[in-house]
Amino acid sequence: MYKLTYFDITALGEPIRLILTYGKMEFEDNRVTFEEWPMVKLNMPFGQVPVLEHDGKVMNQSLAICRYLAKLTKLDGSSDWENLEIDAAAETISDLRTKIGLFYYEKDSLVKEAKKKEVFEEILPFYLEKIEAQIQKNEGHLACKKLTWADFYLIGILDYVNMMLDVDLAEKYPGIKIIQDKLLDIDDIKNWFDEHPRMERKKE
Amino acid sequence: MYKLTYFDITALGEPIRLILTYGKMEFEDNRVTFEEWPMVKLNMPFGQVPVLEHDGKVMNQSLAICRYLAKLTKLDGSSDWENLEIDAAAETISDLRTKIGLFYYEKDSLVKEAKKKEVFEEILPFYLEKIEAQIQKNEGHLACKKLTWADFYLIGILDYVNMMLDVDLAEKYPGIKIIQDKLLDIDDIKNWFDEHPRMERKKE
Repeated sequence: MYKLTYFDITALGEPIRLILTYGKMEFEDNRVTFEEWPMVKLNMPFGQVPVLEHDGKVMNQSLAICRYLAKLTKLDGSSDWENLEIDAAAETISDLRTKIGLFYYEKDSLVKEAKKKEVFEEILPFYLEKIEAQIQKNEGHLACKKLTWADFYLIGILDYVNMMLDVDLAEKYPGIKIIQDKLLDIDDIKNWFDEHPRMERKKE
Repeated sequence: MYKLTYFDITALGEPIRLILTYGKMEFEDNRVTFEEWPMVKLNMPFGQVPVLEHDGKVMNQSLAICRYLAKLTKLDGSSDWENLEIDAAAETISDLRTKIGLFYYEKDSLVKEAKKKEVFEEILPFYLEKIEAQIQKNEGHLACKKLTWADFYLIGILDYVNMMLDVDLAEKYPGIKIIQDKLLDIDDIKNWFDEHPRMERKKE
């Protein structure tokens, strides 16, 4: 049995939870409160979560964990080049998420305003135009014209990204909506989403 | 034959070049000048390099490319969990490189000074203590107690990281020195280093 340690939010833990759920792999969904975190942090490799434990072994890094579980649940590619394609797609989504985080977590309000402008006027249009074209080329997926862990990674972190941007990217970008709908068509994933809260965007 | 497109520097292109060299895989080492870059950028997926081309296919993301080539050159793990261990190690090194880059590329000089302090007083000691322990546990490697592409990734980006920090991490950290020495013990790698310039640190 696997144990996943993360905060009681979606964000970087959610793609892992979705892949485990898709694979019908039982797991302990260990959610650390922010009060518990300082103590838990001391025992985490590189002081970070998500962390996956199995058979007495402990491993960090969310993309690496997703890739590992994807192989077990057949969400990986069927050739080395396909895996490269999937990895590149997931890492590009992760890059975009990091860039959005640099705006969202900026503490200086003037700098934050400038970064927000850059995110909305440059970064998002640049990435999303290419991502949408990629989804179209891949017939409603991020890579390999089929369901892979890159799709799970995107939809797993989507509400976290939406929360940071205070927009719903699936509403604005039809390719993302298609992937989201495809995942929601999977009963286990639909049930997971019904039973676990998403992150809230600001009330308007 | 593979074609690697990157700038005429080491940085994120170098781990890929080292893995190709280790695997005795012939490749076109396409080095774009900064003058050519604006035009080349338009044809690169997500406007970034390094980019690997093969058989008419084009792929971005340096970690993904390293992982792909590592599989072909037997620098990957011998089980799914070993690959997770290698991926996590390489992604942790990449995280550290990103954090150092956030200081190095900061434009505001006051903010840069504060970030520099954080890098030298918090981030580096925190990461390097854990990385050194990891190298010791893995008998002179980053993962799996054997030579893997994580070692190539670390040593490939090392002089770029050293340049940003203006220190030689291999001098300060014996574990990193051990991995560097092991790579330099490989004739093809030694020759590559002899024939290709490293990035210069500031003259003192």
